[in-house]
Amino acid sequence: MNYRMIGYLLGIILLIEAALLCVPMVVALIFGESPFPFLLTIGILALVALLPVLFRPKTTRIYAQEGFVIVALAWILMSLFGALPFVFSNAIPNYIDAVFETVSGFTTTGASILTAVEGLPRGILFWRSFTHWVGGMGVLVFMLAILPSDNGRAMHLLRAEVPGPVKDKLVPKMRQTALILYGIYAILTLALMIALLFTGMPLYDSVVNALATAGTGGFAVKNASIGAYNNPAAEWIIGIFMIVFGINFNLYFLLIVKRFTDFFKNRELRVYLSVVLGATLLITLNTLSYYPTVGTTVRTAFFQVASIVSTTGFGSFNYNLWPSFSKSILFLLMLTGACAGSTAGGLKMSRVMLMFKNIFRSIKQVVMPRSVNVVRQEGEVIPERTLHATANYITIYFVMIVFMTLLVSLDGFDFETNISAVLACINNIGPGFSVVGPVGNFAGFSYFSKIILTFTMLAGRLELLPILILFSPALWKKN
Amino acid sequence: MNYRMIGYLLGIILLIEAALLCVPMVVALIFGESPFPFLLTIGILALVALLPVLFRPKTTRIYAQEGFVIVALAWILMSLFGALPFVFSNAIPNYIDAVFETVSGFTTTGASILTAVEGLPRGILFWRSFTHWVGGMGVLVFMLAILPSDNGRAMHLLRAEVPGPVKDKLVPKMRQTALILYGIYAILTLALMIALLFTGMPLYDSVVNALATAGTGGFAVKNASIGAYNNPAAEWIIGIFMIVFGINFNLYFLLIVKRFTDFFKNRELRVYLSVVLGATLLITLNTLSYYPTVGTTVRTAFFQVASIVSTTGFGSFNYNLWPSFSKSILFLLMLTGACAGSTAGGLKMSRVMLMFKNIFRSIKQVVMPRSVNVVRQEGEVIPERTLHATANYITIYFVMIVFMTLLVSLDGFDFETNISAVLACINNIGPGFSVVGPVGNFAGFSYFSKIILTFTMLAGRLELLPILILFSPALWKKN
Repeated sequence: MNYRMIGYLLGIILLIEAALLCVPMVVALIFGESPFPFLLTIGILALVALLPVLFRPKTTRIYAQEGFVIVALAWILMSLFGALPFVFSNAIPNYIDAVFETVSGFTTTGASILTAVEGLPRGILFWRSFTHWVGGMGVLVFMLAILPSDNGRAMHLLRAEVPGPVKDKLVPKMRQTALILYGIYAILTLALMIALLFTGMPLYDSVVNALATAGTGGFAVKNASIGAYNNPAAEWIIGIFMIVFGINFNLYFLLIVKRFTDFFKNRELRVYLSVVLGATLLITLNTLSYYPTVGTTVRTAFFQVASIVSTTGFGSFNYNLWPSFSKSILFLLMLTGACAGSTAGGLKMSRVMLMFKNIFRSIKQVVMPRSVNVVRQEGEVIPERTLHATANYITIYFVMIVFMTLLVSLDGFDFETNISAVLACINNIGPGFSVVGPVGNFAGFSYFSKIILTFTMLAGRLELLPILILFSPALWKKN
Repeated sequence: MNYRMIGYLLGIILLIEAALLCVPMVVALIFGESPFPFLLTIGILALVALLPVLFRPKTTRIYAQEGFVIVALAWILMSLFGALPFVFSNAIPNYIDAVFETVSGFTTTGASILTAVEGLPRGILFWRSFTHWVGGMGVLVFMLAILPSDNGRAMHLLRAEVPGPVKDKLVPKMRQTALILYGIYAILTLALMIALLFTGMPLYDSVVNALATAGTGGFAVKNASIGAYNNPAAEWIIGIFMIVFGINFNLYFLLIVKRFTDFFKNRELRVYLSVVLGATLLITLNTLSYYPTVGTTVRTAFFQVASIVSTTGFGSFNYNLWPSFSKSILFLLMLTGACAGSTAGGLKMSRVMLMFKNIFRSIKQVVMPRSVNVVRQEGEVIPERTLHATANYITIYFVMIVFMTLLVSLDGFDFETNISAVLACINNIGPGFSVVGPVGNFAGFSYFSKIILTFTMLAGRLELLPILILFSPALWKKN
């Protein structure tokens, strides 16, 4: 392991965090609040990051496993330091709580331990939602840096595609691609912000809600989330933008270069939109008696579906009150998530599609043992090792859900709370059902459970393996 | 597809069922009840089975997929006809309910739609528990016929090991092995029956409870299950025998030939017993305040652990009242099940072990991409295709749980009821939590849900694929 290179890169990342903290500090100053919590954190970050950055490593060569370690530690360290303003401002006095909230922010989860957000300093709430936006950027780079495939464009193919050295010569091309992705990300965020302003939403709220939507995070600045605005137009707009931020960003690049047919031919996009439409329709039919008009029913169903499938987690209605079937549909959407290559969490549609194709193939192979069946996706033959990696991934995913639910159950909450809390965290959604439902929060959990769920959010965000290998003795034994 | 051979074998199986129905008929006569429901069913079976049996097929050669079809249809047909005595006797007037109960019997599940069993005819209740015992025998043959591996002894290796033709020359050896297994099965059942008699349990109850335990089924003849007897000795004995029937029957053969070290060296057995001990210990510690003495706590914890892990489903206490953590442990045990090669359902310990080894390997391979790691179990290298088949199996298993839960949720029960009902059925356990808990039943579900759950029990019992391929168009298109 090239420890000095790891230290160097982590130092740079922490310096970037220090720079990012200037934004909420300015917001705090605008609202006449104390800049001190941010200033102190910036100072600490500068001090900590200085040493590893000054001592540049002799060799910059790193391999895949170092890449994983850097990504995992970057997310962990940014959260550990990013939690400090919450503590310094006394908004979240307990450090474990603050780390939970910050990890929830950076991983674009949006699960909160705060029982009420109204009344907290504007600068602090801005930082809270800003972490979603920064986390969303991080995810986009993460997928580029860690998940590239042979031809560079099939970002939807899974991680296990690329063991082996990450070559330096990839960087210039990656940097260019990252800039394009960031451009799309920033323009979409801006578009949403302006659209929300037009619905009559205040400027500050428009900005933070746009940031939280872009990262598919879900931290709101009202206790009743988006529902608090009683603004149907804003609900529709945020609902649509949640769907938009759940689409593979590579596809937007196709739009920029005017390859519209390729955009609409994308299978994952079609499945994603079909799932959204189907789920909205079923929930609408199932909840017609809950609302005065069909329009309200459709809007509320769509908003909740968009919020869950995109793993954002905003709420416009307490879906805990819905009938079991509608809740079960949301439960299913929690598992699928949106498209790969977006800021969304969850299994991702392309992985779910691959999983089903794999299942159908294994059934077919029993019937016709001698037939050769390849699995195709987006017109390409998927290598066997990718299929196995997908099956392994899904196994690890479900095993983790089961074990985390067991650990969290020590707190004595009901089963629906426990499993949905774990699902909400591993899929980076935010709210679950029952106690952690859309009008609830994670404040009631013990510190043990909060640490477990913090870990779950990180594992889910980084597609499990980068976090899990940190526990592998083999990693640390290697030289 | 050799349809005439399929018909011929199914005919034979139905004639065997007709013969088996004579046992409960005799029981009915002993208790002075009407033999009519059984006699009529025997007559119908004889009529239906006669035609295919008389027309012997020209060629007896069948292949793996025909084997799957025969096994699946045998289970389905036996249930469809086995349900008739319940309808004819008016014990379960509705045919869908009766089929649910019979499938629950033959699959050794033990999920019941009856709200009360006390007062029903003795002959009918005998038949109900006898289906468990017959189902247990069926499972033992099923694993021999459908799941043999290269060396014939590693029955724990998974189904996907043996695509390709099932050769006729296997039959003599198989028949011999089946007889040995049946011998062990019968002797253990008899031993349990005698042991129960010694605790003061009435003869009839001892017999039916022994039959239900042997099949790891769980149908009781008291509304409060085994708890109704207030008989601690019987609880210990049944508890231990539930564990015993969850052990790979091949291992008992090792005991017969006095290879004791090989018996205790078996990894799956060790893991199984460790899980039982660990779960009992954790639940004991978690529920100490629920019982007057430590002895009662240990006994109750052990009984429930044994009942769930062996997928029997007997109850000595309403574990719905336990704290969340203890319930979550039972939930975990529901998933694992007991050992392969036993009458138990669930994923099976050996498959769970293989799954974890596979997970650890995939983590290790990220850290050391160039290292070659083979997975070993019971001293043998597991082929890659078995590992992939295991990962696929677990994927299908979890996907099925998710979809069945969604469908069952249409009835509007709470989430804990829905998911635990599906788990109780797919793992052939019987009771779940909440509405379908140990003091509840499946009576409240709609007929739609009952059909879904009936299908789930069959799919779980036959290790998913044999039932799923019935829906594959490719199977029926083939000649």
